[in-house]
Amino acid sequence: MMDSGLMNESELMSPDIAVIGGGQLARMMQAPALALGVRLRVLAENADAPAAQVIGDYIVGDYTDADTLRAVANGTAAITFDHEHVPGEVLRTLASQGYALRPGPQALQYAQDKARMRRKMDELGIAVPPYAAVTGPAELDAFASRSGGYPLILKTARGGYDGKGVWTVHGSGEAEELFSMIASKPGAVLLAEERVNYRRELAVLIARRPSGESVIYPLVESVQSEGICTEVIAPAPGITAALADEADRIAVTIADALGVTGIMAVELFESAEGRLLVNELAMRPHNTGHWTIDGAQTSQFENHLRAVLDEPLGPSGPTSPASVMVNVLGGQVQHLASQRAAAWQAEPGAHIHLYGKSVRPGRKVGHVTACGDDAEHARRTARRAARILQDGDETGAKQ
Amino acid sequence: MMDSGLMNESELMSPDIAVIGGGQLARMMQAPALALGVRLRVLAENADAPAAQVIGDYIVGDYTDADTLRAVANGTAAITFDHEHVPGEVLRTLASQGYALRPGPQALQYAQDKARMRRKMDELGIAVPPYAAVTGPAELDAFASRSGGYPLILKTARGGYDGKGVWTVHGSGEAEELFSMIASKPGAVLLAEERVNYRRELAVLIARRPSGESVIYPLVESVQSEGICTEVIAPAPGITAALADEADRIAVTIADALGVTGIMAVELFESAEGRLLVNELAMRPHNTGHWTIDGAQTSQFENHLRAVLDEPLGPSGPTSPASVMVNVLGGQVQHLASQRAAAWQAEPGAHIHLYGKSVRPGRKVGHVTACGDDAEHARRTARRAARILQDGDETGAKQ
Repeated sequence: MMDSGLMNESELMSPDIAVIGGGQLARMMQAPALALGVRLRVLAENADAPAAQVIGDYIVGDYTDADTLRAVANGTAAITFDHEHVPGEVLRTLASQGYALRPGPQALQYAQDKARMRRKMDELGIAVPPYAAVTGPAELDAFASRSGGYPLILKTARGGYDGKGVWTVHGSGEAEELFSMIASKPGAVLLAEERVNYRRELAVLIARRPSGESVIYPLVESVQSEGICTEVIAPAPGITAALADEADRIAVTIADALGVTGIMAVELFESAEGRLLVNELAMRPHNTGHWTIDGAQTSQFENHLRAVLDEPLGPSGPTSPASVMVNVLGGQVQHLASQRAAAWQAEPGAHIHLYGKSVRPGRKVGHVTACGDDAEHARRTARRAARILQDGDETGAKQ
Repeated sequence: MMDSGLMNESELMSPDIAVIGGGQLARMMQAPALALGVRLRVLAENADAPAAQVIGDYIVGDYTDADTLRAVANGTAAITFDHEHVPGEVLRTLASQGYALRPGPQALQYAQDKARMRRKMDELGIAVPPYAAVTGPAELDAFASRSGGYPLILKTARGGYDGKGVWTVHGSGEAEELFSMIASKPGAVLLAEERVNYRRELAVLIARRPSGESVIYPLVESVQSEGICTEVIAPAPGITAALADEADRIAVTIADALGVTGIMAVELFESAEGRLLVNELAMRPHNTGHWTIDGAQTSQFENHLRAVLDEPLGPSGPTSPASVMVNVLGGQVQHLASQRAAAWQAEPGAHIHLYGKSVRPGRKVGHVTACGDDAEHARRTARRAARILQDGDETGAKQ
């Protein structure tokens, strides 16, 4: 069933881009879209989805249904995504019917399937943590014995996010228990991975047009807690030129080889030896790029739209020496907007972004960015404002 | 007649601010509003007005009708404005009924009536060009003989904008002709003004909360052509600290004395002797502040929302040494969005803003901002992109 939220004639006339998914990423595309005169039409999960609250032209429907996708795409120049959950066979059907999917199914499969992505990285000569596809405890034991042993990481190849679908396995007994639990989901491919001894997590963001032009954003540090990104520091402190170049090379190699269009985020481990290993790929605007709204010459959301429309990309340089983004996670506060004034009272320069989502513990419901000359100062500013937004004061237990 | 464009439950529930007028200023409020979780409801002239295209919650109706204004304001915390055309008696009625008008009628009257504004400046000891209210050619002649003589400026006290309602009068004969033409509009108060020998036009922008806190943006130079602002250079080149301080003092004095809430723009002449004279006041986001979207720590539109909601204001400092905004006026190109790619091909760093307005010769239909280390370079960048947007190439006759 579809419920049309179409607004007025001018919007009915000419949506430019269909966005599949009505989450905060689609919502944050709307600010550059309205400045640039780009009309978005969103396929939302429901009428109260973050993007449906702020984009008049939306359809509520099922993103796994090809008819629904065609209805959303009708009259647009291109289809892009707020998430990577549209099934590959649906994407391939649409592509074969001439719809301009950006990114296309050929590229997206590597963001959708972690096992396939790792094999592709092997092929491209790009380092990933040692891994193996496994179907049961015996294979996991075999992988453990030929690599660094337990503990190791077990992941579902598809569908995990924000720490979901990822487990640390400390030994054979735990493995059996986990497999019997997971085995109830038929067809789930599991991926075993060595637990990398890494210094920190980094991320590099690239925007690429169908015509091949690309721009790369500065390498950032991504701070994770229980599998969820909590903070991003841009640029990553203390990066050598050689490491930054290596990150750029990885991003361009992957984007070109896979034919990525739009924004791609490459999540990386910086190993104890100072090497870069690819951890995850995302082919859409990404949490590690939210700082660009307030801290870069062109935001990732604007460059995503420009890339999707195959228009020239904007410069990706920072506008401040340091920007720090801190996620606002579901906490004590139910109505985040009611805390804006308190957050600004403490930190008037904090850039507040709220997603219009209902609050659940640990859910990403907003973010704060602070920009300045000094990363530590910016970090304190952003943390303080984020904490007030989520917990009502600065003494919340979190962080 | 009202035509409701209300969208979904969450929007129906809690609009925060009613915006009277659906032009580009209301449209540009939506980018910070959606980031901050501030819900706007717009009273638009029609369903295709710039703001109605991008704000789902709008009503089409007549801004001179108190019932319509009350319907728009229903449930909101405050009412603000895209223009200054709501009649004073309607504003006073709403204020007496407890509606929070920001700015209120007491302040707005000085933006609505140029004669009243000038008398108020006299009272505050703030310099304005020598002026007199005149009702006919004899009074105009008398003013001419006691001031610098002809040519002088004649303006309607109310309703003029972008060069409309302003005439240069070269002598008595011309004055008679003009008065017989204007006399057909009953009740029009006319204002005669000496033609000031000024170096250039400047503008200072201030945001002020009901509680009294204010922030002032850097003094800018405003370049005018035939009464229309064509370019803004921020900060104004070659300004002494003393002159900048004087501009700040003028802005704060006026904002405090008049009880302004939200953004106020003070348009100034810098006289040949280096004095500042107040030319016009606007009590809403203003064309001379559009550069702040891309070039300031907090945009005028965000600070307007913060001020209207009486929340702490954001820092107003620039993020680049120089920003230049160039207006895109109606020219050869009908569908401006079709020229984005060409404009970016020439100037990838140009910040493009399109208003979704139909193109008419000389009408403000968008703007371009360029930021950088050097004002002349930024000016060339913004001019080039604006010219391509409006005329399709760089050789357009304009500018």
